[in-house]
Amino acid sequence: MPHIELPTEMPGITAGFAFRPETANPMRELAHILLHTSGNDGFSSADRELIASFVSSRNTCYFCQTSHGAAAAHLHEGGQDVVDAVCRDYKSAPISKKLKSLLAVAEQVQIDGKRVTADLVAAAKAEGATDIDLHDTILIAAAFSMYNRYVDGLATWQPRDPEMYVAMGERMATQGYSNRK
Amino acid sequence: MPHIELPTEMPGITAGFAFRPETANPMRELAHILLHTSGNDGFSSADRELIASFVSSRNTCYFCQTSHGAAAAHLHEGGQDVVDAVCRDYKSAPISKKLKSLLAVAEQVQIDGKRVTADLVAAAKAEGATDIDLHDTILIAAAFSMYNRYVDGLATWQPRDPEMYVAMGERMATQGYSNRK
Repeated sequence: MPHIELPTEMPGITAGFAFRPETANPMRELAHILLHTSGNDGFSSADRELIASFVSSRNTCYFCQTSHGAAAAHLHEGGQDVVDAVCRDYKSAPISKKLKSLLAVAEQVQIDGKRVTADLVAAAKAEGATDIDLHDTILIAAAFSMYNRYVDGLATWQPRDPEMYVAMGERMATQGYSNRK
Repeated sequence: MPHIELPTEMPGITAGFAFRPETANPMRELAHILLHTSGNDGFSSADRELIASFVSSRNTCYFCQTSHGAAAAHLHEGGQDVVDAVCRDYKSAPISKKLKSLLAVAEQVQIDGKRVTADLVAAAKAEGATDIDLHDTILIAAAFSMYNRYVDGLATWQPRDPEMYVAMGERMATQGYSNRK
């Protein structure tokens, strides 16, 4: 049961967003920029959603891992199998070397930003990562350290119906997150 | 040295904001709502900035702890002594029982949102915390889990000049964070 009186029958973060629209607006916009509209030039929305699901898996946030995993599965040609492989062991997953090097950075940010080393950054640059790619990877990992704590800290309702997440993921992948037009 | 080519001579998060204005806008707006414009009705900006500094101290983020500590010191009648006492041991600090009960919630969110218990929430409600107070406490603690990782993950320049932080804290406390008017 949620810790405060959230709107009922709204899953995960959507209940927090409905409870407090003022803070929902910038939180939605940030996700929209990081995951949806910036996904081009070699750092796709599919890869960004994979990082979001991976960080959420490290934070054991069921709602975020599953919904962003479904979004990544919708966008990635490898589907849900790739998402599962990345969350299980990204180093052996069937993804690019560049994405592996960015996941290695995200992996440290999830624990503590100070754990990102010059060597990890140099390895990512050697695989073709730009400064924007690195910036956005660090911020995606940092932002999901927020979203995950928000969703779990409110004790939101996190349904276990897989079909619901497939539909949610498709909507997230195609429409994005902002309600500002 | 920062991990990517950030603008020089800009401290902490301001360098990340200048590097990527698109993501800076919602990040600034979220801080503005949580710390600056919502600080009334029994949950002041002084208390909100104290929670921000406390969470940043637990994440050992020097820039955020010191700048938000300076903002709290500017707003709080007890000044910097209260900020130091809260970061050292909030349970014995000269602050209200209500704020202590909210810090106890924030303390768990900083580690993992799932550590917030019904007992901690009930204790805060018994001290007069409203659902909005609890929501905002959880989100402040979650949001600083993002800001801290962003500032440290980029390896931003974090000067050690105390006077600079006093001036920065006064500016933050009086003007807030948004650049949207």
